[in-house]
Amino acid sequence: MKNTEILPISRITENRRETRNDLVATEMPLTIFYNEKELVTILCIPEDTLFLAVGYLFSESFIQRKEDILSIKNDEKRGIVFVNTNSKHDPINDLRHTRFIKPDCFNETPFYNAADAALCKKIESNIQISSTEIIKLLKRSQNSSSLFQKTGGVHSAALFDNSDLFIFSEDLGRHNAIDKIFGKCLMKGIPLEDKIMFTSGRISSAILLKIIRARIPIIISRSASTSEAVKLAKKFGVTLIGFARGKKMNIYSNEWRIV
Amino acid sequence: MKNTEILPISRITENRRETRNDLVATEMPLTIFYNEKELVTILCIPEDTLFLAVGYLFSESFIQRKEDILSIKNDEKRGIVFVNTNSKHDPINDLRHTRFIKPDCFNETPFYNAADAALCKKIESNIQISSTEIIKLLKRSQNSSSLFQKTGGVHSAALFDNSDLFIFSEDLGRHNAIDKIFGKCLMKGIPLEDKIMFTSGRISSAILLKIIRARIPIIISRSASTSEAVKLAKKFGVTLIGFARGKKMNIYSNEWRIV
Repeated sequence: MKNTEILPISRITENRRETRNDLVATEMPLTIFYNEKELVTILCIPEDTLFLAVGYLFSESFIQRKEDILSIKNDEKRGIVFVNTNSKHDPINDLRHTRFIKPDCFNETPFYNAADAALCKKIESNIQISSTEIIKLLKRSQNSSSLFQKTGGVHSAALFDNSDLFIFSEDLGRHNAIDKIFGKCLMKGIPLEDKIMFTSGRISSAILLKIIRARIPIIISRSASTSEAVKLAKKFGVTLIGFARGKKMNIYSNEWRIV
Repeated sequence: MKNTEILPISRITENRRETRNDLVATEMPLTIFYNEKELVTILCIPEDTLFLAVGYLFSESFIQRKEDILSIKNDEKRGIVFVNTNSKHDPINDLRHTRFIKPDCFNETPFYNAADAALCKKIESNIQISSTEIIKLLKRSQNSSSLFQKTGGVHSAALFDNSDLFIFSEDLGRHNAIDKIFGKCLMKGIPLEDKIMFTSGRISSAILLKIIRARIPIIISRSASTSEAVKLAKKFGVTLIGFARGKKMNIYSNEWRIV
């Protein structure tokens, strides 16, 4: 299955209406079966679906490392990935699907489930990067996003460090693009710690919790951040950069890592 | 609770680094209890949370109309909306949470759950609107999005028709912004049929299924559409417009409604 489809459209501009062809991103449903049970269906592009499934399970704390996976089968035709693990989590009744609500009011730190609450360890990484280096990597990410250039309708994510590492992914959603990178790193034995993640999408607390879980010290976004994402970044020692476009960026927390 | 928070940031531009204040959108978790059971936690801005809860339940087919709601309580301090309905759906074990998978390959039409599959009725509305009128309404939507203008980090949605109706909403996510409009219309007795929906976000099949469920004949997006959204729009008689910016737009389906 291809990543894009050609469709006939009617294009309206200032003074005229014309029929022409347009490229849109192909969407498919990917269903993950976890230990023989249907867990979730994700809408995605037909690319790196196995990495997406593994990355999703990592992001949601169903697995921690490659060794947790006993078997994996990607039925590309039906859009189903079957993952069997050595974990005993029951996806239906597990605590992770309920919010961790305190009786009085909001938590200062928003843990939405009990699994997240077990995370609370600060990221101490001493990695530093220059803003000049970041600007170069933003440009490289932009140049890599061929599907965005064709369709204008996808998000991208990239993982890099101070050396030559550069892992890139695209998908319909910002969560998927990041999860694909997690999945790829997990399957290929590339450590996530001490790396830098770029995302084209906005950073909510849910994205920041993913980043903390992966022990990534620097997250850079093309878009905005929410109040809770900034609070979490401060609390857990993450350097959070938003509105990174061209040669400009806003540093919301732990700016000492940017030199 | 306010919609925005002021935070000190480090701003890097071409040649310098300065400390200044930045406005970010406030994020809060909203948990919906449905018939005494915890159903879902949504990240959102602290505005129109009751409408968001009602709209979510409508979008996900838990309720069809205002009369289905027996009681509703919005605990704003804790971020919880309790909705009791006359429906017998069990949110944990209900069929709607499993994908409707055919044994051979993808469905031609992607129904992700059994509830969606019951929808399959074409939208026959004869409503028409001129592209000039759409351009005016795009401008009005843009001018209404005060939170986006302040933070650059939220999505908006607007519902309108050929007369004076104009209902607007903003939220962190594109789904939330649309659900808030559904909730507001449901609670205030405003019919959704024969209306036009604008969204700042991209249109996936999930968004298009929302629109079909609400019987809305025209959906206009500032962003891209996916292949499956276009297929669904064609099959169910929805006029789908993408990349509507300034005086330009792409019509992907049922263009006869745009005159």
